[in-house]
Amino acid sequence: MIRVALDVMGGDHAPREILYGARRALRERPDLFLLLVGPEEVLRKFPSHERVEKVLTPEWVEMEEAPGEALRKKPRASIRVALELVKEGRAQAVVSAGNSGVTFGAALLTLGRLPGVLRPAIATILPTLRRPAVLVDAGANVDCKPVHLLQFALMGTLFSERVLGLKRPRVGLLSIGEEGGKGNFLVKRAHALLAEGPFNFVGNVEGQHIFFGEAEVIVCDGFVGNICLKVSEGVAEALAQMLKREVRRDPLALLGFSLARRALSRFRRKVDWREYGGAPLLGVNGVVIIGHGRSDARAVKNALLTAQRFVETGLVEKLRACLSRGKPEDRKVVS
Amino acid sequence: MIRVALDVMGGDHAPREILYGARRALRERPDLFLLLVGPEEVLRKFPSHERVEKVLTPEWVEMEEAPGEALRKKPRASIRVALELVKEGRAQAVVSAGNSGVTFGAALLTLGRLPGVLRPAIATILPTLRRPAVLVDAGANVDCKPVHLLQFALMGTLFSERVLGLKRPRVGLLSIGEEGGKGNFLVKRAHALLAEGPFNFVGNVEGQHIFFGEAEVIVCDGFVGNICLKVSEGVAEALAQMLKREVRRDPLALLGFSLARRALSRFRRKVDWREYGGAPLLGVNGVVIIGHGRSDARAVKNALLTAQRFVETGLVEKLRACLSRGKPEDRKVVS
Repeated sequence: MIRVALDVMGGDHAPREILYGARRALRERPDLFLLLVGPEEVLRKFPSHERVEKVLTPEWVEMEEAPGEALRKKPRASIRVALELVKEGRAQAVVSAGNSGVTFGAALLTLGRLPGVLRPAIATILPTLRRPAVLVDAGANVDCKPVHLLQFALMGTLFSERVLGLKRPRVGLLSIGEEGGKGNFLVKRAHALLAEGPFNFVGNVEGQHIFFGEAEVIVCDGFVGNICLKVSEGVAEALAQMLKREVRRDPLALLGFSLARRALSRFRRKVDWREYGGAPLLGVNGVVIIGHGRSDARAVKNALLTAQRFVETGLVEKLRACLSRGKPEDRKVVS
Repeated sequence: MIRVALDVMGGDHAPREILYGARRALRERPDLFLLLVGPEEVLRKFPSHERVEKVLTPEWVEMEEAPGEALRKKPRASIRVALELVKEGRAQAVVSAGNSGVTFGAALLTLGRLPGVLRPAIATILPTLRRPAVLVDAGANVDCKPVHLLQFALMGTLFSERVLGLKRPRVGLLSIGEEGGKGNFLVKRAHALLAEGPFNFVGNVEGQHIFFGEAEVIVCDGFVGNICLKVSEGVAEALAQMLKREVRRDPLALLGFSLARRALSRFRRKVDWREYGGAPLLGVNGVVIIGHGRSDARAVKNALLTAQRFVETGLVEKLRACLSRGKPEDRKVVS
């Protein structure tokens, strides 16, 4: 039985979609135990269940609150209580679709970093034409040094191997040209460091190649990574809207699209970010899954399953072993 | 009559598509005069035309050559000869779909910067759900200071107003959150500077909003800008391929898509980068349009028309007036 704490107040569609997601996960996984964290008036409505414990707290953080202030002023916020359950050993993982800056800050405060980790990072899983790719960092660290990128590469590799089950994932450094000399100051210096790293480094990867699956671990600083993700979302949505406009103006096309309905929905499922539901925070001392702010029930369910898989694979212990300063063969990773 | 020099050896599909594009532009615009620059054996085949002058040179730069070396070793390369035609006053603009690093370097060497301009930048025009947007810098300057972004904003505004004909274009600073405090070190400092700039600054813009047309001038450093463009291209192409896969597996969907053919091709035209064909280099002392490496005849034709429009609007003179140190009201822009 894996015990996951769920912040029911986090997300644009909280608490409704979060609770629906919880129910779906419980139905799908008989070996999942949920600790639902939120205010009494919300949790009261959730039916009793043998694999559910309700943990009551009167506070929560809104999506638009400034992380620093929210963390100072709301010590009993649902996300913090959920993280404390992990610290106390009552839960093995936390899932929240709330304010990601707050989740990140609260995780650092409550669980702390793994020994040797300089900067925990957000790993987002992307669908590609081949194997799924993981992009690290997706937004936690906006200004990075080369050694941070080196650690992102190592953590991303272990995540890809253990949780996504990929063999020898290729690590690519996101840049603006394939040659090692291409990129900004940070990337040029990081290239030399990654080339020496204990993973399968394949050099620079350009933006247009990410979704063609040319590497399974995409390494970049959190500013570039976050822009990259949001641009991808925006392009996909804008294209869908432009296409809809054209199809609506043309009765023949409308008919055509209704014939293609099944293929279209298979397509949509394949490119849907909700398929993975959450982005793990790598490098903290515990399993923390950050859900997309727009998470619906399906996304929440998938984030809970990702959390469960993360715990089962023992990735945190593996990360601890690989990144701690104690092991001489990994020393260069943290120098 | 506007006289444009065209580097017939630049681009993945040079010289064939470049020459086809030249013919199409000549047919479409009776007030366009072309100076075709390339080797004798290539230009020999191009039929004589009263609005064409052939400028012969034996050298050219390949797409994958390193810019520094190519510039040193090939003083008679077609792109350099084309730029010299502008310097000598024999042409008013240059178009090349060749190696963009070489075009950028050669333009700096041959034409130089406009007075007061710290860093010339590449402006790429993007289709959006509303008015077209221009992204500056799209790849010329990978490491920037806040004052560079300020100049990009000003140059982008003038381009948007003069060449694209937009009124009071909104300037957005590309970042990872809408509040001014969000972003990396560069962007946070640039935000304060842009807020004081002589243009319509609307604050930060996030990646997912670019294609929804939330600003007409998107400002960022060249590393982020180039990744942003390439990710957009990659997402669109990967989505198209994934969709094709699903449709091919399903006869009903295949039929449906053939019914929707017209709407699909209207859609494709709207989102096609070839619609603009080229990205102007802003801040050099002349009109230089950098074509996409993959340019076909249509892209080349459109790049030539963009060059012509650029010359007609007198944008270089306007940029000179606004950015030179001489004018006290603009002094803060270059400080």
